[in-house]
Amino acid sequence: MTKTVIEHILSRLHDLGISDVFGVAGDYSFPINDAVCASSNMRWIGNCNELNAAYAADGYARIKGVAALSTTFAVGELSALNGIAGAFAERLPIFHLVGMPTSAVQNSHRLVHHTLGNGNFDTFYHMSQHVVCAHTIITPENCLEETERLIAWALRERRPVYFGIPSDYAKMPITEHFVKPFNLPRSHQITLSKVINLISQKMIHSQNSCALIGSLILRFNLVNQVQMLIEKTNIPYATMFMDKSVLSETNSQYIGIYNGRLMNPQVTELVENCDCVLNIGALMTDVNSGGFTANINPDHLIQIMDDHVIIGSTVYSEIYLHEILPALKDNLPVISNQKLSANGLGQPIQSKLGEITESYLYPRLEKIFEQDDIIFAETGTFSMGLGFALLPKDVSFHTQSLWGSIGWATPAAFGAAIAAPNRRTILATGEGSHQLTVQEISQFARFGLKPIIFVLNNDGYLIERLLCDEPESYYNDIVQWNYSQIPAALGCEGWVCKKVTTCDELDKVLNMIDSADTAFYIEIVTDRYNSSELLRKMSEFASSLYSS
Amino acid sequence: MTKTVIEHILSRLHDLGISDVFGVAGDYSFPINDAVCASSNMRWIGNCNELNAAYAADGYARIKGVAALSTTFAVGELSALNGIAGAFAERLPIFHLVGMPTSAVQNSHRLVHHTLGNGNFDTFYHMSQHVVCAHTIITPENCLEETERLIAWALRERRPVYFGIPSDYAKMPITEHFVKPFNLPRSHQITLSKVINLISQKMIHSQNSCALIGSLILRFNLVNQVQMLIEKTNIPYATMFMDKSVLSETNSQYIGIYNGRLMNPQVTELVENCDCVLNIGALMTDVNSGGFTANINPDHLIQIMDDHVIIGSTVYSEIYLHEILPALKDNLPVISNQKLSANGLGQPIQSKLGEITESYLYPRLEKIFEQDDIIFAETGTFSMGLGFALLPKDVSFHTQSLWGSIGWATPAAFGAAIAAPNRRTILATGEGSHQLTVQEISQFARFGLKPIIFVLNNDGYLIERLLCDEPESYYNDIVQWNYSQIPAALGCEGWVCKKVTTCDELDKVLNMIDSADTAFYIEIVTDRYNSSELLRKMSEFASSLYSS
Repeated sequence: MTKTVIEHILSRLHDLGISDVFGVAGDYSFPINDAVCASSNMRWIGNCNELNAAYAADGYARIKGVAALSTTFAVGELSALNGIAGAFAERLPIFHLVGMPTSAVQNSHRLVHHTLGNGNFDTFYHMSQHVVCAHTIITPENCLEETERLIAWALRERRPVYFGIPSDYAKMPITEHFVKPFNLPRSHQITLSKVINLISQKMIHSQNSCALIGSLILRFNLVNQVQMLIEKTNIPYATMFMDKSVLSETNSQYIGIYNGRLMNPQVTELVENCDCVLNIGALMTDVNSGGFTANINPDHLIQIMDDHVIIGSTVYSEIYLHEILPALKDNLPVISNQKLSANGLGQPIQSKLGEITESYLYPRLEKIFEQDDIIFAETGTFSMGLGFALLPKDVSFHTQSLWGSIGWATPAAFGAAIAAPNRRTILATGEGSHQLTVQEISQFARFGLKPIIFVLNNDGYLIERLLCDEPESYYNDIVQWNYSQIPAALGCEGWVCKKVTTCDELDKVLNMIDSADTAFYIEIVTDRYNSSELLRKMSEFASSLYSS
Repeated sequence: MTKTVIEHILSRLHDLGISDVFGVAGDYSFPINDAVCASSNMRWIGNCNELNAAYAADGYARIKGVAALSTTFAVGELSALNGIAGAFAERLPIFHLVGMPTSAVQNSHRLVHHTLGNGNFDTFYHMSQHVVCAHTIITPENCLEETERLIAWALRERRPVYFGIPSDYAKMPITEHFVKPFNLPRSHQITLSKVINLISQKMIHSQNSCALIGSLILRFNLVNQVQMLIEKTNIPYATMFMDKSVLSETNSQYIGIYNGRLMNPQVTELVENCDCVLNIGALMTDVNSGGFTANINPDHLIQIMDDHVIIGSTVYSEIYLHEILPALKDNLPVISNQKLSANGLGQPIQSKLGEITESYLYPRLEKIFEQDDIIFAETGTFSMGLGFALLPKDVSFHTQSLWGSIGWATPAAFGAAIAAPNRRTILATGEGSHQLTVQEISQFARFGLKPIIFVLNNDGYLIERLLCDEPESYYNDIVQWNYSQIPAALGCEGWVCKKVTTCDELDKVLNMIDSADTAFYIEIVTDRYNSSELLRKMSEFASSLYSS
């Protein structure tokens, strides 16, 4: 039987590996919601609100590579926009299915709810176009082509796409006809050969080579290719903050986190002294580059990005990651230059009075991480501390370093847990960030997931205190909540909820984690100015970060 | 001393009556946050997240006429967009102050946090332009003119405006020079005289006249003018759902809520039998018109809107509300036609088993309302029940009927309470809507406010169950929370928190309200299909509402 418009779209999304649709139901999107619930291989995940749903889809896409989100017209889609924009920045393909009023209502410009009252129905579609890589208003006639086109762009760019679906069209049968299946783009073959040769020659004639491995290789599902490249060439590599754990940190070639002048001077020395630095898919953002203190000689730098390569000052376009990486793996020389072992955080150091400080907290947490863990760390002092832990094999560590929208981590961790229910999900968030999206913890319990949640309570927005002119400005204060009571209030039954203020208390509850088959929600109280080392350094560099 | 850019903007906003700025602080907006905190007559209200902040500003503007919101670049402003769009639809001037990266960072297209990673800094400014009536990027040179221009548009349109404020410019002294003060627009005087005469003649020659009074008169601060017009002419008037309480419901000329065929047949009969219906500032939306079942003969209708008048099929443009209303008051005839007394909900009727049903709930709540109360009722069965209560003098009742974004009411009620701390604020929300923005209740406690909060728990999205094809579809289910535990978990100390499941329990806790000087948070449990009458009627009309 001919599929309906929405059945066809859902079926194609399922082909890509999507089995869950995040969102909030709404009247204009009932046909989408109905179809998801009626589908035998799709599950509706009803989030508490649309921004949380978008963040959850982001987290799901970080694990599964793709995700789907459905919101209703106007009120729903606009609430999700910040999450969609974050996925655009951080290269996560989210298929955003927006339920629109019927074509008849739109064409007659009726004064219906969820409109601006001006009879315009394309305003929100236009707004979304800025933060997606492709967009369409679906009809039964264009459904086949447009679905393929949007899938192609989503996978080519690894960015969100927007499907506007009028609610009458959603339920109509598609117009069937032949549609060419989508393909990933092909590189310019002559340029590709040239570039491979140039990179190979550059490495052969260099004294010391190293690599920076970036999150694009994870986004483009090319981790295995790069892992093989590292093994074959034996090239030492660092990652930057945004890219942490993109390859397993147990690789012997891994030398640690590179962060310009701010952290790990031995890594900086090695990287910046190389005369050939292969950047595979990493961005030189403010956060990644230690507030632009990174200083790699451009003549030594080769940047292999998603659709182009830069060698020195020459840009070679039409070179795609999925084609150059396998070729490089087979063509680069084996090298044997200086090595550096990546360092962990060492032993936790108790303070004299027993209060929890960064010298205890981060080394102690490093010890609980286990193979295959998924860690979501919110932007702030917490992620900047945990970011320098050395992780066991196949632990995947996620931050939102470029977009940096606080509140992201809580729902994103939930989305990741939905994507990988058999892996252990750990959420590390500051209490200020947690307040933005706290209600989403109730979804873990609803779906029988057992996360380990750490809420760092330092009495306000510490990152802001350390970056603004007046740390004690009251805009850095937040409402004091009784965090350990929140899971029970939000229906999370049977969770272990603790508030810890001393190293001993922290130690005790962390020791429980191994043996218990339950969720943990642990409020960790520190002094309001106790900061991870990176944030302290950023604070010193703040004026240069913000002035130019 | 010459003011800085941000000092000047804040000072002009204060001149308009704004004394509080809602928002979430962020690094690019530190200069804005700093200036608010340093100001002797402005207060920073740090919300839990930006959407909540925008909703709070909406609520504040409903009471004070104007409001201010500050968010940081990209992540902050996008999160607030749905709230801004709602204020656009519902005609609330919110001054949105967005902190941007420094001009140097923007001009050099640096790869900094809170960007899409593409060096563009105007993307989010463009996105906001769709849902504000004026927008600018402020510089020290244009600050004086642009501030006046945006104020003029905000007050002319009663819609939000967008100030993009690069963080270096914010702190620079303004360039001083003469700037013409803004004026409200002037009507076309000949057309105005003509229209006043036409309306007056139409009323004189009609058998029966009545009026529909809309929320635009509240938005344009013209309630007193219309009150005088009603008193002088003695014209009977109804309001529609979105416009409830715009004039005091104790006026003897008030006949009740007009809702087409769905409700109050005696009001519908009176209105639709008049041969002169004066619509002053009301919109014929789906919700207002009983799902487009309202049926007023267009030849009998005179529509006086913010900037035009429609008589029959003729549109008279350039007629402004602030000029025509005082003139009408002095020129319309006194009429003496049939009257109708507005009805309240009568006596609460207990069910046999004592469970809470709509026959008890709404009449019982009607009895607790007191003069000067502020009521915020969330879109859903709850507002559709309370909307037909007859309110004491000067009670102001607020819904978001056109935009209809669920989650709005909780933060909006907080904003209203900040605007009018000496009035009693009552929030009536369904539990599904409450979940979107629940964290904002903690702000009431933080600022020492004592709201009365009713959370109607009917085990899911009831309005959706009644409007969709399959009421039991699991997308209408939500997570079960322990609502009465939430205020304590969120730091609201000393609140009376109760869960009531029977009429007697409800009665008991409502009786406490009068004597107690504290906040109340009352979870009211009903059957999952117990619905207010209007929602039941809407459900019957749903197919016609959505198909055309």
